[in-house]
Amino acid sequence: MPVLRRRLAAVLGLLLSVPAAADEGMWMANQLPELAAQLRAAGFEGDPAALADLTAAPLNAVVKAGGGTGAFVSDQGLLVTNHHVAYGVIQYNSKPDRNLLEQGFAAADQPGELRGSPDFRVLVTERFDRVTDRVLAAASGKKGLAYFDAIDAAGKAIVAECEAQKGRRCSVANMDYGAEFYRIQQVELRDVRLVYAPPGAIGKYGDEIDNFMWPRHSGDFALLRAYVGTDGKPADYDAANRPYRPPGHLAVSRDGPKDGDFAMLAGYPGITYRHRLASEFAERIDWGLAANVDALDALIAVIEREGARDKDAAVKYASQLASLKNGSKRFSGELAGLLRSDAKRQRAEAEQAMLAWLRHDGRSDARCRKGERCLDGAATLEHITGVEALLRQASATRERDLLLTLMQNQTQLLRAANSLQRLALERGKPDPKRETGYQQRDENLIEAQLKQVQRRYAAGTEQALVLELLRRYRALPPAQRIPEFDAAFGTDADTAQATLARIYGATRLGDEAFRLSKLGAEPAAVRASDDAMLALAAKIQPALLRLEQERKQREGELLRLRPAYMAALKRWYRERDKPLFPDANATLRVSYGHVAGFSPRDGVDYRPVTTVAGIVEKHTGKDPFDAPAPLLAAIARGDFGTTADPALNTQTVNFLTDLDTTGGNSGSPVLNARGELVGLNFDSNWESVSASWWFDPRYKRAVHVDLRYLRWLMDKVYPAHWLLAEMGVPASR
Amino acid sequence: MPVLRRRLAAVLGLLLSVPAAADEGMWMANQLPELAAQLRAAGFEGDPAALADLTAAPLNAVVKAGGGTGAFVSDQGLLVTNHHVAYGVIQYNSKPDRNLLEQGFAAADQPGELRGSPDFRVLVTERFDRVTDRVLAAASGKKGLAYFDAIDAAGKAIVAECEAQKGRRCSVANMDYGAEFYRIQQVELRDVRLVYAPPGAIGKYGDEIDNFMWPRHSGDFALLRAYVGTDGKPADYDAANRPYRPPGHLAVSRDGPKDGDFAMLAGYPGITYRHRLASEFAERIDWGLAANVDALDALIAVIEREGARDKDAAVKYASQLASLKNGSKRFSGELAGLLRSDAKRQRAEAEQAMLAWLRHDGRSDARCRKGERCLDGAATLEHITGVEALLRQASATRERDLLLTLMQNQTQLLRAANSLQRLALERGKPDPKRETGYQQRDENLIEAQLKQVQRRYAAGTEQALVLELLRRYRALPPAQRIPEFDAAFGTDADTAQATLARIYGATRLGDEAFRLSKLGAEPAAVRASDDAMLALAAKIQPALLRLEQERKQREGELLRLRPAYMAALKRWYRERDKPLFPDANATLRVSYGHVAGFSPRDGVDYRPVTTVAGIVEKHTGKDPFDAPAPLLAAIARGDFGTTADPALNTQTVNFLTDLDTTGGNSGSPVLNARGELVGLNFDSNWESVSASWWFDPRYKRAVHVDLRYLRWLMDKVYPAHWLLAEMGVPASR
Repeated sequence: MPVLRRRLAAVLGLLLSVPAAADEGMWMANQLPELAAQLRAAGFEGDPAALADLTAAPLNAVVKAGGGTGAFVSDQGLLVTNHHVAYGVIQYNSKPDRNLLEQGFAAADQPGELRGSPDFRVLVTERFDRVTDRVLAAASGKKGLAYFDAIDAAGKAIVAECEAQKGRRCSVANMDYGAEFYRIQQVELRDVRLVYAPPGAIGKYGDEIDNFMWPRHSGDFALLRAYVGTDGKPADYDAANRPYRPPGHLAVSRDGPKDGDFAMLAGYPGITYRHRLASEFAERIDWGLAANVDALDALIAVIEREGARDKDAAVKYASQLASLKNGSKRFSGELAGLLRSDAKRQRAEAEQAMLAWLRHDGRSDARCRKGERCLDGAATLEHITGVEALLRQASATRERDLLLTLMQNQTQLLRAANSLQRLALERGKPDPKRETGYQQRDENLIEAQLKQVQRRYAAGTEQALVLELLRRYRALPPAQRIPEFDAAFGTDADTAQATLARIYGATRLGDEAFRLSKLGAEPAAVRASDDAMLALAAKIQPALLRLEQERKQREGELLRLRPAYMAALKRWYRERDKPLFPDANATLRVSYGHVAGFSPRDGVDYRPVTTVAGIVEKHTGKDPFDAPAPLLAAIARGDFGTTADPALNTQTVNFLTDLDTTGGNSGSPVLNARGELVGLNFDSNWESVSASWWFDPRYKRAVHVDLRYLRWLMDKVYPAHWLLAEMGVPASR
Repeated sequence: MPVLRRRLAAVLGLLLSVPAAADEGMWMANQLPELAAQLRAAGFEGDPAALADLTAAPLNAVVKAGGGTGAFVSDQGLLVTNHHVAYGVIQYNSKPDRNLLEQGFAAADQPGELRGSPDFRVLVTERFDRVTDRVLAAASGKKGLAYFDAIDAAGKAIVAECEAQKGRRCSVANMDYGAEFYRIQQVELRDVRLVYAPPGAIGKYGDEIDNFMWPRHSGDFALLRAYVGTDGKPADYDAANRPYRPPGHLAVSRDGPKDGDFAMLAGYPGITYRHRLASEFAERIDWGLAANVDALDALIAVIEREGARDKDAAVKYASQLASLKNGSKRFSGELAGLLRSDAKRQRAEAEQAMLAWLRHDGRSDARCRKGERCLDGAATLEHITGVEALLRQASATRERDLLLTLMQNQTQLLRAANSLQRLALERGKPDPKRETGYQQRDENLIEAQLKQVQRRYAAGTEQALVLELLRRYRALPPAQRIPEFDAAFGTDADTAQATLARIYGATRLGDEAFRLSKLGAEPAAVRASDDAMLALAAKIQPALLRLEQERKQREGELLRLRPAYMAALKRWYRERDKPLFPDANATLRVSYGHVAGFSPRDGVDYRPVTTVAGIVEKHTGKDPFDAPAPLLAAIARGDFGTTADPALNTQTVNFLTDLDTTGGNSGSPVLNARGELVGLNFDSNWESVSASWWFDPRYKRAVHVDLRYLRWLMDKVYPAHWLLAEMGVPASR
């Protein structure tokens, strides 16, 4: 992005209206009592102290469901989540003559509920305990790789102990980049059945076109029910199983959200970078995002060029192409957003202020809370200097590392060969010592990936992709080059091309049977295989292992040093009476704020609530805007009963809040001031794609299904009155 | 458009919010005193009675300028209009090394003003007189063609008498479809100079991409000055000429528009169809718009297909292709808008109500005002029946007539041949008897058109276009066929193709010298020419003349019968205390309403005022979003002085009102409640493209330049402080 555009983006930031008072924060439940005053000021009518306990109401109703979040809405294990979260369960029950993804499904009664896909899990949190002392004790006195390995081993041991209990799933969460560790113990429910799903044309109305867009008009919800064995314990599917009695469930609100209402959301946000160092912000904005866009666009061009001359390749790479385009678009959007928010400058100024404070006022460790691991100002600054040095070290090879990552994850045959060689290596070790991702329990996944190759691989396209990456690799300064790679592919274009032509021409890895046969083969035989691609992978493996060790060494040091930075940040916030939330790490978090529209650009305001009029406006009769006839007819009848919005005098569909969310929050319940369920989170707006780094209250919004739309559909369009009664919101009349 | 979509559009109309209280109406000035109560209720603070006189303030400041409207803003003949209205004047002064279209222009002082293009005229209305009695007396007792010719001749005589005065331009305007006639006498100013124009990148910021769009950010304005001879009379350019002293000029407001403010606009709207019969609405909606889209899309496909195999043809037809696409898009937009507004049903219900009233309460002519030509109810109904019969008659050949129109105006060589043959015919008559468009004064225009052919003609493409139109023609029912056409082109595809190949292969009309030589040739020689294309035109001319006579016969009858419908409509409105404005006919009209945003679709609100933030947001550095560096720098400085909006605390650019406008209103001054100039009209929003037929207060908006933007640019960005002083709004400090 040219310098002028960057400057303009900053000018724009100054021209735009002053930020609204939206609240950044993905809070751990145990932080919420500290926020009591803010919660009450925002409009929360419940007891903030009650929010601290994950195992008490209302948070005990919130569960991990499949890849997203869900919430119990009855004492009979009924739970609500997104249509796209339950997708696999619906797909599992779809047949050509009864396609539930298309038609939707409404169980007539409880026995009519459909068995879910075997891999779908609901996880109910039972315990959430701090294990920082035990984990850090193991690493005490260590550095670098040893520190990394000690933390890794301590975590694995804690999980193993915890999972010795039957029907439990455990994990150790790293908070604040190695500052704190928590053990999470969850009940793992394995019999989860399909209860209700709207037709796909409602559940994903607008689909890819509307994805990230506002205004939205999607009924992205589904109802599932968790079952347990007759003994009340988690069990695989069995017809005799009974509905699970959850520790708690949410009350469904009879009112709906309106502009300015308090709103609160609980869920499992995946990852954010808000507390990264200013230098990391600068690198992301000045280099990372544009570099990714540039590399992805180059691969897109290769696939399109190859696809133009080979129709079969075009079909095989359609999905990868779409994914690359989506990636490039998202990176571009993230860059535009960070520039518009002037995030680099803002982060740098905040960090400079903190460092200045550390150098003077913040020097004494007397400000640390009792029992808190915190260093004095000088030691903290020393640690931060250490972190900066490690980041600079990583940056020195960032161009090469980006290319190597793409070479791994944008190829099929090369990745398969690398994977098989690594597995062969790991299989020679005792299972607990095997690298994460290559343990016994991972072999099924590896097999599945090896089977996928067939549908996504064309030799010409993959060679062209690797050639493009090698071309870029050869343009790097010598310090970033790797001897094993130079030896394997040569140091000029002709050699690279000839080498690849030879390898891709000779390898039998394109043959599924051959490929899968290597999965269970003697490790030594795989390593010594004369297959050209496997031999190549064996040749470059030492380099990949060496780079991995270097990375772990660096990550170990970062785990050791970064907590000082986080502790200083925390103290600095505390002195300003502001609590600090840990960056998201797929653990349960709570965010609160308000129902709020926004202005996407000069002259335009987005309202926070959409109505069925938008469904009719968007309807084209063609996917993804093909509203089913019963829905259109019901809209035309205008019979919205008790679910109509009293002020708008029509049926609402979706709404916006300024809640702090990120990927993983899909299906998160949205609660009103009384803690009642008013919505289901399902997406964000395009303008907030940069929010994983920087929360800009002018633009950060979350997109939700209005629970009244769910109720109306189940009342008037695709009725399931018994379920409405079970949820305590009976059908009208 | 499928039936379902039509039904959905109607459903949507019901779902959308209740119309705001916007006022439809393009009023004649002499109607405004009648509207005094409404004007005051809307917020007008001046004297409504003062608005009646076109020759008194403020309307005497409003003039016809080039193809649009302008307004005097000083007593020294300084006038403001749109950049796109003054385009020819700016272009005339542009040279490769000093491109004023790109750079803009600011005269340093009065002597530095630049001579305008010779064809640019400013027309100042001196008199506006009712001549209905004289015109209708001439037609009294006549019918059909004779009625048409009598009206035509009376108008020509009135104009000739009026224009006997030196320096005057006169016309006769037909109001209410033949009910009233007015003579308009205007001073014709021929020396109009360029005083100030912003760079094109400001004057048409957004250009075709933003055309019809909102939010807008265009500085679409320019300043001109009218000059007269040393005797104070209209004169051609002469260095000795002096600034014209206009009869009045507008005061420029020091405040700007804000949401809800009263607004008023005067200008020359071109044509509307609001008072057409319900059956005409039905035909437009049920047939006309879709038929036009279908035919235009077919021609678009032909041009694209031919362009794909002939690059030269693609270049030559680029402009015609763009125009066809624009036409198709506009017709589609008009249809969508009329369906969304449910205009057909609404117009039919209103007309049915009026007819029912006519049959009962409205029977007596006692309700007519003294001196008003109006019939009793029975006679009125009889006239309306007559109109309906004439419309049905026209409809019987509508498909064919559409194709013939396209064959005329979408071809180059065929049109040239028809034009030359018609001119040859007319040149045999005394000039006053020659057909309009083929008189002596029209010959320059015809020559110019004949010269254009070269740049826009490719034989293959034109043949393909004519073949497509003939294919559609042959599919018509026999009753619509024309013997001369069947004889000329045959009645099957092969004959048509062979005939066209022979004619286009043989004709020399593609040669400019040959073509132009026919312009002054002996009429008989042209008619007897052995050139294949001229011979074809001679062969089909009798048919074209016959159809033209039939059309004039019908139009004469409509002129005779339609006034009864208009009189009934007027009386019906009057009984409901509502005045009725005549449909627009390029005469001066006044519209009043308010500054108002709107909701283009569910969940989205458009604000009525835009700011410079939007310029920065849209800036790409590439045309049409290439904001000049001085503008960007001035925005970044944020020095908006006295022109900043006090509430928004930044510089505004454009604004929206619900004023009733149509094409021709370009450059119309927008006045505030005190009659001061606050804006310049320059466009409409896309949602109101159907407003020429139906005014929907939810969507009909007009787009204006905020005069504060003009003042800021002239104050801080491209300064011309002497002009601000002349306008009475001196630069800040």
